[in-house]
Amino acid sequence: MKKIGIGLLGLGTVGQGVANIISNPNDRHPLVGELEIVGVAVRNLQKKRDIPLPDSIFTTNAFEIVENPNIQIVVEVMGGIEPAKSLIIQAIRAGKSVVTANKAVIARHGEEIANEAKAAGVYVLIEAAVGGGIPIIEPLKQSLGGNQITKVSGIINGTTNYILSRMDKEGVHYADVLREAQELGYAESDPAADVEGSDAADKIAILSGLAFGGAINRANIPTTGINLLEAIDVNYARKLGYGIKLLAISEKGKNITQAEISQPLSIWVEPTLVPEDNPLAGVNGVNNAILVEGNPIGQVMFFGPGAGSGPTASAVVADILNIAGFQSMSSEISLNLDPLLSAKSWRICHIAEEKEITKKNYIRLITEDTPGVIGQIGTIFGQKKISIESIVQFDASDSEAEIVVITHKIKQGQLEEALLDIKNLPEVKRIAATMGCL
Amino acid sequence: MKKIGIGLLGLGTVGQGVANIISNPNDRHPLVGELEIVGVAVRNLQKKRDIPLPDSIFTTNAFEIVENPNIQIVVEVMGGIEPAKSLIIQAIRAGKSVVTANKAVIARHGEEIANEAKAAGVYVLIEAAVGGGIPIIEPLKQSLGGNQITKVSGIINGTTNYILSRMDKEGVHYADVLREAQELGYAESDPAADVEGSDAADKIAILSGLAFGGAINRANIPTTGINLLEAIDVNYARKLGYGIKLLAISEKGKNITQAEISQPLSIWVEPTLVPEDNPLAGVNGVNNAILVEGNPIGQVMFFGPGAGSGPTASAVVADILNIAGFQSMSSEISLNLDPLLSAKSWRICHIAEEKEITKKNYIRLITEDTPGVIGQIGTIFGQKKISIESIVQFDASDSEAEIVVITHKIKQGQLEEALLDIKNLPEVKRIAATMGCL
Repeated sequence: MKKIGIGLLGLGTVGQGVANIISNPNDRHPLVGELEIVGVAVRNLQKKRDIPLPDSIFTTNAFEIVENPNIQIVVEVMGGIEPAKSLIIQAIRAGKSVVTANKAVIARHGEEIANEAKAAGVYVLIEAAVGGGIPIIEPLKQSLGGNQITKVSGIINGTTNYILSRMDKEGVHYADVLREAQELGYAESDPAADVEGSDAADKIAILSGLAFGGAINRANIPTTGINLLEAIDVNYARKLGYGIKLLAISEKGKNITQAEISQPLSIWVEPTLVPEDNPLAGVNGVNNAILVEGNPIGQVMFFGPGAGSGPTASAVVADILNIAGFQSMSSEISLNLDPLLSAKSWRICHIAEEKEITKKNYIRLITEDTPGVIGQIGTIFGQKKISIESIVQFDASDSEAEIVVITHKIKQGQLEEALLDIKNLPEVKRIAATMGCL
Repeated sequence: MKKIGIGLLGLGTVGQGVANIISNPNDRHPLVGELEIVGVAVRNLQKKRDIPLPDSIFTTNAFEIVENPNIQIVVEVMGGIEPAKSLIIQAIRAGKSVVTANKAVIARHGEEIANEAKAAGVYVLIEAAVGGGIPIIEPLKQSLGGNQITKVSGIINGTTNYILSRMDKEGVHYADVLREAQELGYAESDPAADVEGSDAADKIAILSGLAFGGAINRANIPTTGINLLEAIDVNYARKLGYGIKLLAISEKGKNITQAEISQPLSIWVEPTLVPEDNPLAGVNGVNNAILVEGNPIGQVMFFGPGAGSGPTASAVVADILNIAGFQSMSSEISLNLDPLLSAKSWRICHIAEEKEITKKNYIRLITEDTPGVIGQIGTIFGQKKISIESIVQFDASDSEAEIVVITHKIKQGQLEEALLDIKNLPEVKRIAATMGCL
């Protein structure tokens, strides 16, 4: 049997992980042995690489890979928006299926790419784009298709989870942990995409599109990172029985009638208090975990390494194997696409306004240390019909008090109004922090 | 488009769950709307069922279902070995793909059934046989195929996990919890298959076959249930920082050369001490969790409801959708089977002898309360080259002492020899318990 030709765009850590798997098929699924890397595009031919591939298949011209007639599957592991996006589209138009780990491209241009793939009759598979090695894209597409999905949530950025785990365990400050994480290679030298939440927003956009069957306008996802998180909030959260995790959450609006054609979703990324007995509370370090809730399955969780060369390569190869499997199903005719893996949209989704998001909240206020201030705050929440789970006054320096409020589930619009009034109380100096709470 | 005909063998809780999904496709993957239940075999036509299916499609003759030309996919959810197994084979020979939740049949006759399916060119999918609604079979077949799997382990029996969770939390005795679990419907009136470990052995046999690519002789799996577990061991384990879980474990032998054709596996089912910081320690109640370890993925965990009508039906429908998806890929020619989902064996596996199993152990001894007994026990372990993690003497009544030993990883053959010698010490009254330890 003729081997299936693979072309790699990029040979960084993930690309090398993929090459290592394909070059060493022993002890893996036999289909791995049917794959052959026949072209690799890199920026620098001279760079020394410890990889068992012949020099002759390397090129600096990525377009040679996407046009190579001996390549059936193009693997894009170069990252960045361009030229990655153009190469993906060119590969599709050349009739090749594409496997990519590029969450930024898929979150922003997924719909355009899906339309191109549909027109060309090829697959674009993206298991590696979310959750590193954790199988989550394929279960959403295939194993959970019988469910009415109601919510997808989780910890989907390993860098911030590493930082938060250390802040929680050691009581250290954000800036200090970030610096160490950068030294250890767990955080990029420009950490913005991770710590400001944009990477998590990319990923929850992708998961939402699959879970709810419609393209997501990623630009509309309210996103707060951990870059402004203070150690004192981690400390107070712990005293109240919570850990803090950067969660990405996507859930179906309530009271949706069947006539509703456009599915409204609440999607947001935010540091969130997680009760100690929640399955997400035990997810530490660079691990990721994704919870999927639906009817009738209830709740399932997928847990594992959210990044890294090996795990991400495992996900890339899973996608390659799926496409290779389809190719071996018929050698003579071109098949229709599998309706599960091709993951076409089947309805319109739109993101609800931020003020419609309904959740519990953690609020920390700096106030004067005078009697009656808790009563005044409580009264304002009451006027806005916000039910409160707890108000706790923590010790503070000098004449200041720190008051932490945890609300029940309320609309964010309600909270905004209440916080405006609270800010105007003469005893309230400032609203020091607001976060979500499970 | 003509709908895809589904035939149900059995309409118990899982069958009804499946019927509910298919009858209510709204808000699920659109492919659910292409399915139609056209035949249902039940034992009693008169039984009142709250299910939206017309009377005309019911029959008491299951063979009518497997021979019905309007049925493309037969769903076996009747349970038990016979007639389930014969019906599955007859359906296959009639050219129909089969979806089954029947772990007992697959664990015992999986190889025969797989050979029949291969000959007939149909699928037999079994997502619901292990882990209820948790996607685990499909990830093992598809998403993890690029890995060299080294270990599959987990909590795969919900009934015993419910019992153990309550024993641990409330300090109550096994027999009392079992009685309550039976009253609540969490345990069968004949609980043997669950509490003696046979159900977990069925499931780890299935998972091992998929993870390691070869048929497993299920009869050779050493199996210990929780039916002899004493509350005092739960108590001591907790004091030492462990919970007790009924684990099923399957791991590759060490030092396997590439020339080895027959893959030796250590597989066993046993109550096992799990350290409090292990991801499995937080899996409580009727939940299941399966850990898969491999190269290069590292470790991933799948967590969720291990049983129940809804979750199991979700898994059954996932399999139906996969087959339906393939059928929609080509209406004109019959395709080869997808090499991932058809899950053919690709090597020989054999189960290593019990004495070759290498693991940590928990041993509880009843001894006389005399000085020097810990020294004598330690000496014997030393003579057998067994390295010990801890020996702790717990208080006991009268002149008796209870001594708990936790070993490092050793071969079970070594342990047996040591325990023979220890039993012969005049100060040792009996070996009260032995368990595994992570």
